[in-house]
Parts: sequence; structure tokens; C-alpha cells
Amino acid sequence: MEDSLDALRALMASRSPPLDALIVPSEDSHQSEYVSARDQRRVFISGFTGSAGLALVTQNGAYLWTDGRYFLQASKQLSDRWKLMRSGEDPAVETWISDNLPRDAAIGVNPWCVSVDTARRWESVFIKKRQKLVQLANDLVDEVWKDRPAEEILPVSVQPLEFSGRSVSEKIRNLRGRLSQEKAYAIVITALDEVAWLYNIRGNDVAYCPVVHAYAIVTADSSFLYVDQRKLPNEVVDHLTDNGITIRGYSDVESDIVLLASGQSLNSKTRHSIGESNATGSDDQGHTGAARLIENDDEKRKQHAVWIDPSSCCFVLYSKFASDKILLLPSPLSLSKALKNDVELSGLRKAHERDGAAVVQFLSWLDNQMQQIYGASGYFLESEGAKKKNNSVKLTEVSVSDRLEEFRSKQEHFKGLSFPTISGVGPNAAIIHYKPQLETCSELDPDSIYLFDSGAQYRDGTTDVTRTVHFGKPSAHEKACYTAVLKGHIALDVATFPNGTTGHSLDVLARTPLWKRGLDYRHGTGHGVGSYLLVHEGPHLISFRPYAGNVALQASMTVTDEPGYYEDGNFGIRLENVLIVKEASTDFDFGGKGYLSFEHITWVPFQNKLIDSAALTPDEIRWVDDYHSTCRKILAPYLNAEENRWLERATVPLQVDENL
Amino acid sequence: MEDSLDALRALMASRSPPLDALIVPSEDSHQSEYVSARDQRRVFISGFTGSAGLALVTQNGAYLWTDGRYFLQASKQLSDRWKLMRSGEDPAVETWISDNLPRDAAIGVNPWCVSVDTARRWESVFIKKRQKLVQLANDLVDEVWKDRPAEEILPVSVQPLEFSGRSVSEKIRNLRGRLSQEKAYAIVITALDEVAWLYNIRGNDVAYCPVVHAYAIVTADSSFLYVDQRKLPNEVVDHLTDNGITIRGYSDVESDIVLLASGQSLNSKTRHSIGESNATGSDDQGHTGAARLIENDDEKRKQHAVWIDPSSCCFVLYSKFASDKILLLPSPLSLSKALKNDVELSGLRKAHERDGAAVVQFLSWLDNQMQQIYGASGYFLESEGAKKKNNSVKLTEVSVSDRLEEFRSKQEHFKGLSFPTISGVGPNAAIIHYKPQLETCSELDPDSIYLFDSGAQYRDGTTDVTRTVHFGKPSAHEKACYTAVLKGHIALDVATFPNGTTGHSLDVLARTPLWKRGLDYRHGTGHGVGSYLLVHEGPHLISFRPYAGNVALQASMTVTDEPGYYEDGNFGIRLENVLIVKEASTDFDFGGKGYLSFEHITWVPFQNKLIDSAALTPDEIRWVDDYHSTCRKILAPYLNAEENRWLERATVPLQVDENL
Repeated sequence: MEDSLDALRALMASRSPPLDALIVPSEDSHQSEYVSARDQRRVFISGFTGSAGLALVTQNGAYLWTDGRYFLQASKQLSDRWKLMRSGEDPAVETWISDNLPRDAAIGVNPWCVSVDTARRWESVFIKKRQKLVQLANDLVDEVWKDRPAEEILPVSVQPLEFSGRSVSEKIRNLRGRLSQEKAYAIVITALDEVAWLYNIRGNDVAYCPVVHAYAIVTADSSFLYVDQRKLPNEVVDHLTDNGITIRGYSDVESDIVLLASGQSLNSKTRHSIGESNATGSDDQGHTGAARLIENDDEKRKQHAVWIDPSSCCFVLYSKFASDKILLLPSPLSLSKALKNDVELSGLRKAHERDGAAVVQFLSWLDNQMQQIYGASGYFLESEGAKKKNNSVKLTEVSVSDRLEEFRSKQEHFKGLSFPTISGVGPNAAIIHYKPQLETCSELDPDSIYLFDSGAQYRDGTTDVTRTVHFGKPSAHEKACYTAVLKGHIALDVATFPNGTTGHSLDVLARTPLWKRGLDYRHGTGHGVGSYLLVHEGPHLISFRPYAGNVALQASMTVTDEPGYYEDGNFGIRLENVLIVKEASTDFDFGGKGYLSFEHITWVPFQNKLIDSAALTPDEIRWVDDYHSTCRKILAPYLNAEENRWLERATVPLQVDENL
Repeated sequence: MEDSLDALRALMASRSPPLDALIVPSEDSHQSEYVSARDQRRVFISGFTGSAGLALVTQNGAYLWTDGRYFLQASKQLSDRWKLMRSGEDPAVETWISDNLPRDAAIGVNPWCVSVDTARRWESVFIKKRQKLVQLANDLVDEVWKDRPAEEILPVSVQPLEFSGRSVSEKIRNLRGRLSQEKAYAIVITALDEVAWLYNIRGNDVAYCPVVHAYAIVTADSSFLYVDQRKLPNEVVDHLTDNGITIRGYSDVESDIVLLASGQSLNSKTRHSIGESNATGSDDQGHTGAARLIENDDEKRKQHAVWIDPSSCCFVLYSKFASDKILLLPSPLSLSKALKNDVELSGLRKAHERDGAAVVQFLSWLDNQMQQIYGASGYFLESEGAKKKNNSVKLTEVSVSDRLEEFRSKQEHFKGLSFPTISGVGPNAAIIHYKPQLETCSELDPDSIYLFDSGAQYRDGTTDVTRTVHFGKPSAHEKACYTAVLKGHIALDVATFPNGTTGHSLDVLARTPLWKRGLDYRHGTGHGVGSYLLVHEGPHLISFRPYAGNVALQASMTVTDEPGYYEDGNFGIRLENVLIVKEASTDFDFGGKGYLSFEHITWVPFQNKLIDSAALTPDEIRWVDDYHSTCRKILAPYLNAEENRWLERATVPLQVDENL
């Protein structure tokens, strides 16, 4: 790693002109949140393993920007050759460069790994000192990364209609309708989940994310998939061909974009052979595919622009176009994908039932283990100062989360986890994005809160659930905080709101019970969840930050409801269900816009022991009891007798409790 | 009025070049919401009396833009020579002009009556067809307005320290601190309430608004008031002079701005005589005052810009400046004025006690009248189909609101109403800004809801309160709606929130109980209230619309809490208290930002008969009972024995009610 830094600087200096700095972003060529091992260039060069960050290497310095979630971790992982730059406190990278690097400085970047929006923001600052963003043809980090993981050729599969619910031809038809509305000739799709969703395919290229490294281009009359064809089994090739999709090499996207940018048509042998084109003649561009000029389409192509989403499209592809040939707008697939169809909704409901059953199996198992190994009073009873009974066995944050994965893996349609499990005891639960490491993780503790935030990929849906539990005697303060978080969770869950309302407007509902006590949490309240796709999905959000392009919540979107409270060095609480936005059945429809509400589809009990029922309203008590009663009904078929007995106890009504 | 339209067109045509159109805004030369009778040019020319609107006169057409509150009223008041343009449905005036008037068209406007923001927005659209906004030296409407009211010379008074709480010198010192922060040489203050607040004076030039037509300019070393000096009694002249303020003629503001714009100093004989200037020589500009060039300040003036608030400053003054000599920023006085000092807060509390007493006296009187005249069951009891007992006496929307004013006028420090009383029976209560007219107003009805929204100006504070009452048997639907509005009112009232939270974020709290039933209201939830100043005051708002420059709520601001529900043709409900933002005493201070909550200062009971207590939570019932119990304590000293007996009944606890 340290030698690599020297090697990198030598490479930077050897260029003509030499680079004054190199930016190494966290993203891959698709601006993904999670990237494959061989794309973790920023992790390799800096040694910092957090999910978010940006490295800047100059001839004399090395700087790593990350956000508040990771200050502690980064300061531990970075060597003394690196300086930690705190986002929100230190100047942004482009400002730092403008302030600290000389006039006319050359700043290199791999232009595949940076979005149009980000690169243009950098350039707008660099220009003040005539500094230049240099688009590198080769990634310099790759050149010094001796043991960079090789690319694995992992198979793509078809996401069949029984799970996807909408045919590729219908999706393409709708997309072409949007192109025509916006007077666009073509759209370039670079976000991996959008490609997978559009063509009803799934891959294995990125851990936790069932996507394949691929691009798509859809024009008014053709559609293309750019992918390493070795990843495509015959049935996938058939599926694509049957849907009129031309398969091209992954790297062919660049040359095809050049053709598009010069106003030429993309067309293919496949399409020719089925007579949809009048083009003839050989491909004189020398491509492995068959991109070529179609004269009679010229007028259309010259009038119409190519649609690119500036937040997800890589800078290199954008740079091929004259600016008046580009339509910079959010991708329409982001919203289409977020509006789940009935088959996807039904799959998501089923997946969450199985997932809930696995979590209950885990909790029942863990309760038993905590009592046996640590002499804890357990999930239901309260007693203090339990002593460890069995010193030969240990439960750790990693070992129990492995066990949780095992319960999930036995469920039908299980394909893997949807993100690295957050499994934290006591103070670790207060670290919002805590990821326990085998060597350093904590042991479970009957006197401490345990928080786990986890989810899985099933062929019929993606899940994401957080619960916070205590196997001994929680303090009155812990109960009060748990209850405030629960009140916020319920307030959002039961909200009814008119069409047009954004998640930003609703965010306050989940916070008011915490604010009442002077408490809060430093993260948003909810994000969309994919249908056997990414666990974090836009374009909507429930967040305290108003943001440009905030999309209103709409019926058939998924969104999480996950307020929390985190006390540094002490404990953390988060309670998360997945919700589906649905049309509400209100008595009236003032304004005629229609009203919306939520359906929760996560089924895992809340821990009655941590609830201060006296602080709940009668409606809130009814909500908890109804939720628990439905948990019993839904999960019973998935559980064995012992697990069902555990669930019965875990879902005893609060109202009955009070009368005992 | 109709002849005036012809006369106006003749004037437009006689100009060189002729005007293709004339815009007649509603505002005066200070962009006021309420304007004096002689400034109601748009009302005069169009015949439409609503508070908001804009008229456009072309050679062939006449168009009146207004918003949804006024569609019905405008369509009744406009003659068939006028076309109603519905804001939000029809194109905006600038778009209409661009779409419908010819290339190079000349559009006239009185440039005193349009803000910088508005005029620049128009111009940015006009430019597409090279259309031109012509700044008229004389208002053409004034020229055709034969019986335009003469200007009244009404006296200005000093708002003494016992009510204003902060000296003029302190206010000016703070303002100069802000000028220096922003590197501004001077600020031009055009908003009437900002001038009045800064100099601790009050006037009588605009109904409901204790302001005087005046401008102010404050520079790094001088301060000026531009006002018709006949309005200033000796003690006001002394007060101003003692505070180093130079008094100039109202219209001198224009020539002084020209001096400022040319980089010259404003200075005065008064200042000279106390040796703060080394300028000598006669005033060769020919002004009645003594504006003149000061050489040694040149450097400073040339470096520093003049601060103008583009939302309130008139276009004509802005137009005198080169654009690099202007600092366009919201006026700092807007926030300073909104942050009430302790004396103002204490005055507001006292004013609201007296105001609440007057409203209770009114309700007690009205209850008695309704029973005597209409045989109503009254404020406390429910019975249907009461028959009118006494045909010789009538209670109308106007007559009872006159009576309400009478009760207020007997209170100490009363100076007048703070806005035209909204007094509506049944369907009229559903018209959000209903203003009953003597000739056409409705009679009170024991079978209908009655809504009144009213307030007064007292020397120690401005008030604004809305209550909705029923003197017969309200329907279950009316009760359910009243209760939902009350729940929203309480939810906002009890909110605790961290510093940095905007009113926009909190707005949803007042709506969720209504949304639950598919109900809503088409207005914001709250506005600031002045301290013996305007009843509508910024810069903060509680609104469902996120807006640029939305200012966070801060301790010591006032804000109303006024959710409602309006059923067209049927009834309307609104419940409004004034709140003061205060520091909250929370158990914790997560984030270290400090938390805020509200103190309500309005004391008028809600009507228990209209409350469905079964739909309230125990906390909400406690809130109502506590509020009512405090009403009794606070108002008792202001009421006679009979009124106190009425108040006792009106504030019987809901909890006791339930057990009866």
C-alpha cells in the first residue's frame, strides 16, 4: 500500500504533462454505492475500508475525505502518510485543490468512475485558477495494484415474469414513450440496477447486489446491452435476443457512444436480419458488433438529443457529446423501477414473511443461547448482573450474525444478504454503520442492548429490517429511548397524506417523539428498497434534508421506516420496517388529489420488555398489539413448535400485560 | 370606472411611444400588503375589492389576475369589459404578455409600485420578444381617477421604550454592524413596518397598520427619515433629532438615492452642526435638505455597495444604481424585528390577555343574544330547529363584528383593529378571507357554524385570534371536523424541535389529523405577528410550501397556529392562537443545538360542545383542560361577574364532562 503510493506518484510524474494530483473516487464505472472487490481502488490505495470516501494523491501529500460516520475508523486505518479530511468540517476536495494547488495544475481522474454532476462541479471550481481535470485513459491505481483481484466471470440469470411482473418489451415500450415525450433519440443507461431492471436480468458481479456490470442504450428503434458475453448462459442470450436486444461487448459502449455523438445510428445484424432496418453494407467502423450509419434516420437523430442522467452517467461518456446533443435529466427508469407492479409487491410481501420467520428463529435461538451461555434472564424477563455460566462458548457480533444468515439461507428463494449485517453490542450499537470484524468484534452481553440491521436478497424481493433487543435488565433510560423511537416509528407508519407529499415533509413525524425529550438521530428516516435488486433505491427518500428533485411518495413505492437514537459510547436503538405506499381509504378526498398511506410488510416483533407502555397512547398500544397479533398469524406456518411458543410469548398484548 | 378605462387607454395611446399595455399592481410605493385608500388604484380601475390582484389594461382588453381565495368574488365584481385570470390556472401576467402582445411592445408600470424581484422577473420574460417594461414618471391611473381620496395628514407618534424595549440608537448601532459585516456603505429601507420599527415611531396612514408613509436610509455615519414633515408633532421631531436622524421630505428619497448611486455622500445640516462632517459650501443640488458631496468619504463609498432588499424595494429606486453598486439581500431588519425583546414579549402577553377578555365578553354577549333573539339553545346546550323569537332585532355578520370591536375598544391601549374582521355564518365561514359587507352580509343562524377571525392593535402588541362556534346543535360531521382541526392545532402547539427547524418542516404536524380523514386546508398554518405593527410579519412562516429563504424558527419569534377546514357551500372551521417560540427545557440536548417549543399567549376558550372528546388522546384532553383552566385564571380580573360565570361554564374540564 505504501509502496503503491510511491509507485503511483512516479506514474503521475511520468505523464506528459505530469499530474499535480490524482483523485481516486470510491465508485465504479456505474457510480455504484457497493462495488466489486477489484473496483475498490480507493480502499486499496488508502487502506481505509469504509463505504464512502475519496482519496486525493499529490506529489507531497495524500488526503482522504470521508463523512462523520467514519471519522473514527478512518483515523485508525490511515497511515501517517495520509491526512484525514472531514467532510462538513474541512473544505471539499475541489475547494482544497483550488486553494492549495498551483495555477494551471493538472488533476487526473479515471473518468469512468466519476459522475457528470460531480465532474462538472469540480471543473466549475478548478476554472478559477485555470486548473484542469484530466481524463485518464488508464486507471493509474490499477497499474500499481499488483494483486488486484481478477475479474470473475459469474453467470447472469433471467428474472422471469413470475417475479419481475412486467415484460422487457413492455418496459422498453414505456421507455420509448418517455423518449418521445422528451424528444430524445436515445437514452444511455449506466446504473447497474436500471440495466438489470429494464432487461429483467440479474447478475453476481457485486457483493450484496444482484447486478451484472453492463450498460444499456435504447433508441427509438433498437436496444443494446453492453456486457462481457461470457457471463451469459444460453437461456439469457435467448431471452435477450427474443426481446430484440442486441448484445455487444462491455467496452463497446464507448465506441457506440462515439457513433451516437456524431449523429450516426446504432444498428445490428440481429435487427437487420429481422428486417427492421433498410441499412446495408459492411461495418466500416471495425467494431465487433455492427454499428453503422443509417441515412434515412439522419433527420431524426440530428433533431433529437441523447438522454443522460447526470447523477449516474460517467463523465467519460458524457464528454463524447456536444452539449446541445445531450438531454441531462434524471433517468425515467429510476421512478419506473420504484413503482412496483402487483407481482413485485406480492413477491416482496412473501419475501418479507420468510425473512421475518428467519429473524424470529434467530431471536428465539439467541434468547436460548444467551440464557444458557451467559445466564441471562432472557428476552422476556428482567434481572440484573447475570454471570457467565459457560466459559468455553462465546457469542460474538460476528458469530451471531453468521447464525442469522444461516436461518435466512434456509428460506425459499434465498440468494444472499442484501448488505453487510450491522450487528452491534452496547457502544457498538451507537455506531450507525457499524460492521463487526472477526478479529476485533465484541462479545454479546446480557447487560447491554444488541442492535442488528440486516436483510437478504430473495428472488422475489429484497428485505431490510432492524430490531434492538436486551436479554437482561434494560435501564429506565434505555426503555424511555426505545419507546420514543417506537412512537416515531408508529407515527410514520400510520400517516395518511395527500398525493404530492414528499418524504421530506413526513420525516418530522418520526422525530417529534424524540425531539420532545431533546433527542434526535443523524440519518434519514427511510429509503426505497428494490425488488431483488439494490437495498437502497431512489428516487424518493424520507429525510430531514430538503433536496433538489425530491420526488413525492407515490402508491406502490417501497420505503423503510427507521428512526433511531444513538448515545455515543453507550448504546444505540433503531427500529426498521419496510413499508409499501398504498392508496388510503379515507372518508373524504379534499382537494381531489387522492390520499396515500402505508402498509408494513416486515414481520418481526418489537420487544415488549423495552416498551414503556405508560408512555404510549391507547392508539399506539393498539398498533403494537395488532402488529404482534398479525406477526403470529403470518409467521406461524414457517416456524416449528418451539419457535411458535417463543413467538406467542413475544407477542403477548401490551394491554393484557398491563392488567396482570 | 368604465369611463376611466377609456380615459386610461387614451392616455396610454397619447404617450410617445404609445403603451401597448399598462400593469396596475395592488401595492403602494412600499410594497405593502394593506394600502391606504388613495393607493387602491387596482381596486379603482377594476372594481374588484379583494386584497390581492393585478390588473392589466391593453387597448382592446382588460385582465384581472387574482388567486383562488377570490375567484368567486372577482367574477361577481368585474364588469364584462374585464376578463378574470385565475392564478395557478391561467398563465402568469408576464407569460400572457409575452404570448399575446407583439414583439417590441411597450408595457407601462408605475415603478414605485413594483418590487425589484417582480420587475426583474417580468423583464426576464419580456426580453424574449424584445418587449420593454416602461417606468412611468406619473401614475396614469391617478390621472384618470377624478375623486381619488386626498392625502390625509395624520400624526405620527413615538413608540416609547416602555413598549418598544430597545432604543433607536441601539437598533441603528446593530444595523451598522450588519452593514459593516456585508461591506455595505448604506441601506435603503422601504418597508413601512421596518422604518417604523427602526425609528420607534408609529403612524396612521394605512388602515389596520400603525405605520407612516416613509423611507429610511442608514449609512455608516448618518441616518435619514423621508416623510411628510407635517405629520410630525414636535415631540416626534425631538425624538428623531435626539437620535441623530435627519428628517427629509418624503419625495427627497429619490434625489438622495441618485446622490448615493453616483457615489456621493448624504449629509445634513444637523450633522454638520455637531461637527461630524468637514463638508462646507452650499447645496448646489437644489434640495430642500442638504445632501452634498463629501470628498474624504469617497474611497469608502466607492468600495462599498448600497444594500437593497429586492422583495420590498421599489423598482424605481433600484434602477438608479449600477448593478455592481448594489447588494441585493433580504433586509436584516426583517429578522431583527421578528426577534422580539423581553419588553415586546411582555407587552404582547398583556395585550393578548386584554384581547382574550374582550373576545370572551363578546361570546358571552352573543350567546345571550342568540338565545333571546333566535331561541337558540346557546353556546352550552344542544337542540335543533330553534325558531326566531324576536323578529324586530337582527344579528348580522357585520353587526356582531362591530360589537366585537366595541368590546375591544374599551380595553387599555386599544388603537384599532389589526385587519378587517372575518365574520362568517355557515357557507360564508368556508370563504377563507371572507369580509362581510353591510348590504349583503348574512344573518346569524342558530343552526349554523359561526367563524370569526379578528385582532386588534394595542400600543403594547398586535393580536390575531380565530374561533369557530355553534349556538345550536352541530352535526356529528361538524364536530368531527372541529375536533380534527383542534388536534392539529394542539399537535403544533406542543411540538418541541431543534434549532434550525423551519416552519415548513413543522407544518405537517397541524395537518396529519385532517389528512387521516382525507381533509386538508389550502392555506399556510402560521405567520409572524408584529409588536404594535403589522399582523402579518416575516421572515418566517409555517407553510406546506418549501420556499427559498425559508428562515428557521428562533426563540422569541411570534407565530400563529391556525389550521382549518373549509367545506364549500357548507361551513368552515379555523382555530387560531398566537404562539411565542421559546427555548424548551428538554431532558437532553442531542446535537448540542438547543431545542425550542412554543408558549401560547391567546386566551379564548375552545367550544367543548364542538369537541368529540372520544377522538382526543388523554394528552390532548389534558391540554384542553389545562388551557381552559389557565383562561379562567388569566381572564377573570378583566370580566364582570356574569361574564365570569359564563367563562366558568365554557371552561368546564372535558374529563369531568365525561363522568357526568
